[in-house]
Amino acid sequence: MTRKEHDFIGELEIENDVYYGIQTFRAIENFKMTRRRLKDYPFFIKAFAQIKKAAILANKEVGVLDKKRADALILAVDELIQGRYIDQFMVDMIQGGAGTSTNMNINEVLTNIALEKMGHKKGEYNYLHVNDHTNLGQSTNDTYPSSVKVAVYAKLSDLLKAMKILVEELEKKADEFKDIIKMGRTELEDAVPTTLGNSFNAFATYIKFDIKNIKFAMELMKSLNLGATAIGTGINCHPDYKFIVIEKLKQITEIDFKQSDDFIAATQDTGDFVMVSGVLKTAAVRLSKIINDLRLMNSGPRCGFGEIELPQMQPGSSIMPGKVNPVICEVVGEACHEVIGNDTTIMLCSQRGEFELNAFEPGIAYALFNSLILLENAYKTLANKAIKDVKAKPENCLNLVLNSVGIVTAFNPIIGYENSASIAKEALQSGKSVGEIAIERGLLTKKEVDDILDPKNMLNPKMPSIKK
Amino acid sequence: MTRKEHDFIGELEIENDVYYGIQTFRAIENFKMTRRRLKDYPFFIKAFAQIKKAAILANKEVGVLDKKRADALILAVDELIQGRYIDQFMVDMIQGGAGTSTNMNINEVLTNIALEKMGHKKGEYNYLHVNDHTNLGQSTNDTYPSSVKVAVYAKLSDLLKAMKILVEELEKKADEFKDIIKMGRTELEDAVPTTLGNSFNAFATYIKFDIKNIKFAMELMKSLNLGATAIGTGINCHPDYKFIVIEKLKQITEIDFKQSDDFIAATQDTGDFVMVSGVLKTAAVRLSKIINDLRLMNSGPRCGFGEIELPQMQPGSSIMPGKVNPVICEVVGEACHEVIGNDTTIMLCSQRGEFELNAFEPGIAYALFNSLILLENAYKTLANKAIKDVKAKPENCLNLVLNSVGIVTAFNPIIGYENSASIAKEALQSGKSVGEIAIERGLLTKKEVDDILDPKNMLNPKMPSIKK
Amino acid sequence: MTRKEHDFIGELEIENDVYYGIQTFRAIENFKMTRRRLKDYPFFIKAFAQIKKAAILANKEVGVLDKKRADALILAVDELIQGRYIDQFMVDMIQGGAGTSTNMNINEVLTNIALEKMGHKKGEYNYLHVNDHTNLGQSTNDTYPSSVKVAVYAKLSDLLKAMKILVEELEKKADEFKDIIKMGRTELEDAVPTTLGNSFNAFATYIKFDIKNIKFAMELMKSLNLGATAIGTGINCHPDYKFIVIEKLKQITEIDFKQSDDFIAATQDTGDFVMVSGVLKTAAVRLSKIINDLRLMNSGPRCGFGEIELPQMQPGSSIMPGKVNPVICEVVGEACHEVIGNDTTIMLCSQRGEFELNAFEPGIAYALFNSLILLENAYKTLANKAIKDVKAKPENCLNLVLNSVGIVTAFNPIIGYENSASIAKEALQSGKSVGEIAIERGLLTKKEVDDILDPKNMLNPKMPSIKK
Amino acid sequence: MTRKEHDFIGELEIENDVYYGIQTFRAIENFKMTRRRLKDYPFFIKAFAQIKKAAILANKEVGVLDKKRADALILAVDELIQGRYIDQFMVDMIQGGAGTSTNMNINEVLTNIALEKMGHKKGEYNYLHVNDHTNLGQSTNDTYPSSVKVAVYAKLSDLLKAMKILVEELEKKADEFKDIIKMGRTELEDAVPTTLGNSFNAFATYIKFDIKNIKFAMELMKSLNLGATAIGTGINCHPDYKFIVIEKLKQITEIDFKQSDDFIAATQDTGDFVMVSGVLKTAAVRLSKIINDLRLMNSGPRCGFGEIELPQMQPGSSIMPGKVNPVICEVVGEACHEVIGNDTTIMLCSQRGEFELNAFEPGIAYALFNSLILLENAYKTLANKAIKDVKAKPENCLNLVLNSVGIVTAFNPIIGYENSASIAKEALQSGKSVGEIAIERGLLTKKEVDDILDPKNMLNPKMPSIKK
Repeated sequence: MTRKEHDFIGELEIENDVYYGIQTFRAIENFKMTRRRLKDYPFFIKAFAQIKKAAILANKEVGVLDKKRADALILAVDELIQGRYIDQFMVDMIQGGAGTSTNMNINEVLTNIALEKMGHKKGEYNYLHVNDHTNLGQSTNDTYPSSVKVAVYAKLSDLLKAMKILVEELEKKADEFKDIIKMGRTELEDAVPTTLGNSFNAFATYIKFDIKNIKFAMELMKSLNLGATAIGTGINCHPDYKFIVIEKLKQITEIDFKQSDDFIAATQDTGDFVMVSGVLKTAAVRLSKIINDLRLMNSGPRCGFGEIELPQMQPGSSIMPGKVNPVICEVVGEACHEVIGNDTTIMLCSQRGEFELNAFEPGIAYALFNSLILLENAYKTLANKAIKDVKAKPENCLNLVLNSVGIVTAFNPIIGYENSASIAKEALQSGKSVGEIAIERGLLTKKEVDDILDPKNMLNPKMPSIKK
Repeated sequence: MTRKEHDFIGELEIENDVYYGIQTFRAIENFKMTRRRLKDYPFFIKAFAQIKKAAILANKEVGVLDKKRADALILAVDELIQGRYIDQFMVDMIQGGAGTSTNMNINEVLTNIALEKMGHKKGEYNYLHVNDHTNLGQSTNDTYPSSVKVAVYAKLSDLLKAMKILVEELEKKADEFKDIIKMGRTELEDAVPTTLGNSFNAFATYIKFDIKNIKFAMELMKSLNLGATAIGTGINCHPDYKFIVIEKLKQITEIDFKQSDDFIAATQDTGDFVMVSGVLKTAAVRLSKIINDLRLMNSGPRCGFGEIELPQMQPGSSIMPGKVNPVICEVVGEACHEVIGNDTTIMLCSQRGEFELNAFEPGIAYALFNSLILLENAYKTLANKAIKDVKAKPENCLNLVLNSVGIVTAFNPIIGYENSASIAKEALQSGKSVGEIAIERGLLTKKEVDDILDPKNMLNPKMPSIKK
Repeated sequence: MTRKEHDFIGELEIENDVYYGIQTFRAIENFKMTRRRLKDYPFFIKAFAQIKKAAILANKEVGVLDKKRADALILAVDELIQGRYIDQFMVDMIQGGAGTSTNMNINEVLTNIALEKMGHKKGEYNYLHVNDHTNLGQSTNDTYPSSVKVAVYAKLSDLLKAMKILVEELEKKADEFKDIIKMGRTELEDAVPTTLGNSFNAFATYIKFDIKNIKFAMELMKSLNLGATAIGTGINCHPDYKFIVIEKLKQITEIDFKQSDDFIAATQDTGDFVMVSGVLKTAAVRLSKIINDLRLMNSGPRCGFGEIELPQMQPGSSIMPGKVNPVICEVVGEACHEVIGNDTTIMLCSQRGEFELNAFEPGIAYALFNSLILLENAYKTLANKAIKDVKAKPENCLNLVLNSVGIVTAFNPIIGYENSASIAKEALQSGKSVGEIAIERGLLTKKEVDDILDPKNMLNPKMPSIKK
Repeated sequence: MTRKEHDFIGELEIENDVYYGIQTFRAIENFKMTRRRLKDYPFFIKAFAQIKKAAILANKEVGVLDKKRADALILAVDELIQGRYIDQFMVDMIQGGAGTSTNMNINEVLTNIALEKMGHKKGEYNYLHVNDHTNLGQSTNDTYPSSVKVAVYAKLSDLLKAMKILVEELEKKADEFKDIIKMGRTELEDAVPTTLGNSFNAFATYIKFDIKNIKFAMELMKSLNLGATAIGTGINCHPDYKFIVIEKLKQITEIDFKQSDDFIAATQDTGDFVMVSGVLKTAAVRLSKIINDLRLMNSGPRCGFGEIELPQMQPGSSIMPGKVNPVICEVVGEACHEVIGNDTTIMLCSQRGEFELNAFEPGIAYALFNSLILLENAYKTLANKAIKDVKAKPENCLNLVLNSVGIVTAFNPIIGYENSASIAKEALQSGKSVGEIAIERGLLTKKEVDDILDPKNMLNPKMPSIKK
């Protein structure tokens, strides 16, 4: 069974059981690119529905939408917010038209649900019109970017939670490992001692740095252009709408969104998304550094650094028995590389905006949502499948320190850089320990050497007074 | 109903109806990142199955795999090649382990299908062992990269076909538009006349440039490391295997794959994929240029360049009635931006290879496959939904030329650059035509002006003899 | 005339008139990459000298550096801060060693200047030792990243000034153009009217968005790890030093730098620079959008949009007389593309940090400094050479609006979307105006049409009450 | 002393001793961006001069340029080819105008040198005109991209030489190290044995892969659009010119350049440069992998992998005595990151081409030339300062292998994957060797173990017959 629908391009038959209409139908046909559809991003549909609800309530309140239609639309939009009808959102995530097909998909679905609530049939738009009522006082150009912002805000909140889980696990390990002396390395070369706890604590600090950046990014997502309509001049929108719609949205979402100061700029600008992506990229870069350090410390088990042991998640090879790989670190690394690639995509889409709008905004939304999902998964995966059960190999760690030459650094304040350098050179050539040589040369006594080279002393430097 | 399976990590219950085994099960649990699974890339599973078939045949021929097991595996692998059991490939496309989980997913599915063919039950690996028989003489480290290459080769072939469709449509239009005079523009400023046919022909030439690059890239995909096993030394592989397996693969695929000269390098190197991605990026950059020129020429309909009219695919606005946007060009642009973003991802994954292998190869495969799919869709979409039915607006085109100042360039050879520049300046200030001014100044006769400024003459330059 | 210097690698002859020593000499030989040297970035040398001065003062105050040596070093460092001896900084900007060669270049120059102040000859390090005195309580690993931060902070301040100049010029033009009605365009297609003032004001708003981001970035640059020495444990540094050195630096720079909370993390992390670069990239993306809109509005003069006229800076062609190009916009665009490319470089360098340090920090500093210089030049150039003297073409702007079809949007609230769409369609096919058709069809009176289509009304939308 | 010059913008005073004229003067003022000037890229000026010489000779031969002027210009251009007057090329490398300022800089310098040769004074353009004679039959739009191609070709040749030096050094070391058994590692985890020679040979193979790509890229640079003039239609150019100019250029350069098949496409397309940059990026990615493996193998000296010792180039720390860092690898890595960043810049510039020309071509030339210079330096530096004198640590290498568990892989063909995995597990837990356990369990005899685990046997696998 089908029904006929028309737009100014022409007429088409639509299956009677679908809630979307002719414009969604065309968009499904037109955009066959990623094989990822709106329905695969339910948090986005939820955000868009929240915007629509705010718009309906505002239009009702300023008196441009009658109660009957408004109430039917509210019933409909509440169902979308609850996640129903998600299978009606079939348009590809990347699409021409700056999001018009997304806006029309939701407009059409809302209208047809509401028509049924009103006792009419789907497609009887003379009772409730997709453009004149459901989209009243709105344009794709204000609802789409605002919905993307609301969705990004929601996912950034989820991301924060995942980040905090990782911080917590890292800090637990930092505490557990706080007395495990290990060699510090700079430029992959032996430097001076540190603790394994220091390393894990630094990882936690990294994430905290990123949390600050994420919070800054979240603020950018709060400024919306609802009421700007087509290009920011607010054409066809009741003058009070813009004030009321933002209040309604705040009530619906319980987040303090606010009206942008410059609707013209806000409608055409996508720079805030570039900024958010820059924040995610920074987080991905830091996360990459963490997983690479973990892989290095875990390397071995016999022929590598061998300072930690990541939990064994799966056999590591189809041919090498007993081999175990740091697969969780690796998949997290791949996710980070995807996020960084998405940053390039977002920059390109943003850079191609022209005049009063950016036509490539759906490309931004797609890449940004993917980055948000990937990063959230990455933090959780790393926390739960790698950090939670990582073990130290304290003996290996200590033996490396005791066997090292870099500890000669601690002699500097007593015997000077040049004497120390000369000792280091001999140690490397002869295989002797640096302490041994210092004593042989009469530069330090055995007691002094033992005291200076006690790793705990190297970690809590004391300093002699005035240099001679 | 479940069966018990074990590996050296431990034991697990597996649903009896699934053909994959314990290692696939672990991988599904471990890698929850992209929500895209192996099954969503059937051309990759097909390519991997082709490799597996070649390996089975080679092992049988060199006499390390008995006929009974080999024949059961061949029956099984042929079903995979035909696309059956695709729903058994449930591991996420990005995964740690350098593809081990992909290789084991296919090994496990093959083994269990073959076990059933042999009259045994799934999981009775004592009759046919996943590692000892199905994976015999192989490692993830030779089968995975080789399968990715076979799959990329296949998709590059598909891409070539899509590119040729676009070339054909562009050349048809180049012919149709060959006599439509239009203004040439450099740096967006009026230059000298050209034809609309020239523009469309240049677009076709662009794609032909890229076709040459694609063919170069395809050659790179032909060199495989089958027989390299774990790290290129060929450990645990029959010495004749490597020669036979490549012959078998050539028969199976009808493509002239060849054995790599340096198995050590070939096993650790992923640079060829970076190169392929560089070729795709170049194509995406050229395609971007085409769609942006189309958008500019199509801009208007009243307040833009207005030189062509792209087919109307859908209403362009939820608020602006009658508006139509170049949505096909836009979605193609977004696809190009995705491809360019993937190039960054691939570079990052490749750059992080260490020692005898690159752990991030699944990240490369994922991004590269996505780029290949997107570009193929982009060429087809542009050809069929924009170029095939694009129309010229010949009057607009001609009027712009006749009204322009840039045509003064054609006076140069007669009256010199400085006189021409002075005429141009006056024309812009006064609104007079350049011909008029040249006549007024007595520099040219009316007949000369008419002759020189006949657009056809400007397109086929004649040149006076010696400069004075 | 030469002097002999040695380090633990060996001995070399150094020209007597140079103030740098053996380690700088080796570095000059070792690093021949960019042909850009430290001396080409005097603001960086100044920042590094400020750090050194703070260190000297702190060492003196905690009592580990004697007054005589300290005072000589202070005299020396003050000269560096004033810009003297800049030609002594000859090491390539990119260099191995995580900046050690930069730190040693400044240590050696300082030491030799101070030796002369003390009445000694250059190279008489027994009186004042490069490592034991000048570098006392310091490591490259705290002084180098801190100096980069101080330098970036200084250049971000300069950048802010340049941005504000552009904002000012744009706002002047926004005011000048506030009554010039022009066509708004979305997706390059005619939309609804706006003003040229709106466009220029939006550009100003863009820059203001970026100014907020820059200020966030500046805060990140304030947290320093002075006192962390080699890896953050503070080895060989007086325990009070870290508190005093930051106070001294605040006095010297008059900027409220602060001590990092986690020296371990701060020493190895370069994510803050990735974040700063992300902010610069966002600014470059927005600036790109501005210059591209300017180029489009300036396109013509006869065959393009022709809404503005950028100042004529130089003849535009060696062959086309009278041609003028938007060269300032173009060069600004190229600068933006460089900045975005540098963002990739910085990400890569940062992503490769390992363990307690990032070896690629000089690569970050080089790319980041280049971005800062380029962007500052870009803003100033655009402000002074393009915006300050740009002119509107008000008649062209208005004629396009009056001739457009998009204005039919303003009929929506009265006659509905579908009637309006039908009028638009007829207008495009027939060439009639939309008002004419609305009257013919009896949908609106002439008076209504005139009132609705008065551009000023379209810019300040009124809204009828309840939809029927 | 000054002279007056004018163009259609106005009149200016030019210092009498400079050979450039008013347009160069304006460009110097207009473009203050990178602080890098044309003169800093003498190979580019040489290439441009070669193009100019070919043009002059062609114009003379087709009879549009008289002998007297032609001969003076030939004398002048030969001096430029020899590198004289390089200080006259003062325009910033990035510039608006698609290279017009570069073309005019060379036109002006050539004209004024030639004027002096003819016995006239600089600036007496009535005897020899910059546009009408020196630039005759040319446009920036054919000479600039052609010159960039000629210059890139020349630098790619230089690059090839540098790459071959590195291949040679690597192959020498591959031979020297061919019997040094070392542990192979996949995903940083112990795998199976290889040789240090294999590793260095693989590095050489990498470079050879890239050499093939470079040669492909060089072919792309051979196709030129000389004779296309402004937009590819050949306006104002003698019809025979295009055939003759390419022959002249071939004689001058001794390289088989050829005429492009489609002048319209060739004039607007910059995709070939994107492709060249993609090739350079691929080389940079492979080079990054090499330097990172070197850094890992060199890590230590006591607490890392310690398999090789890179030559000591300079002290590694201002605070840690005796520390030596792999500074050459690091600076090469930074150069690679720059090259990859430039690839982004080039993509962006190319992607913004519009209509008949790409305005951002100087941005492409700048980034591409920088990449070429950096990569050439990188290969040479690595070859001469790291590879030539790298030493193996054969004992460390062997001890790691003998101590490893991964060698259990060699048991597979005899005792099966599952037995081997179980042995591996016990070995790791107990600290026993895998051979010991295999004997204890009665799975292998001591003789078998010794035979299988002889590293040489593991490197040259034998394979038992049929699997049971």
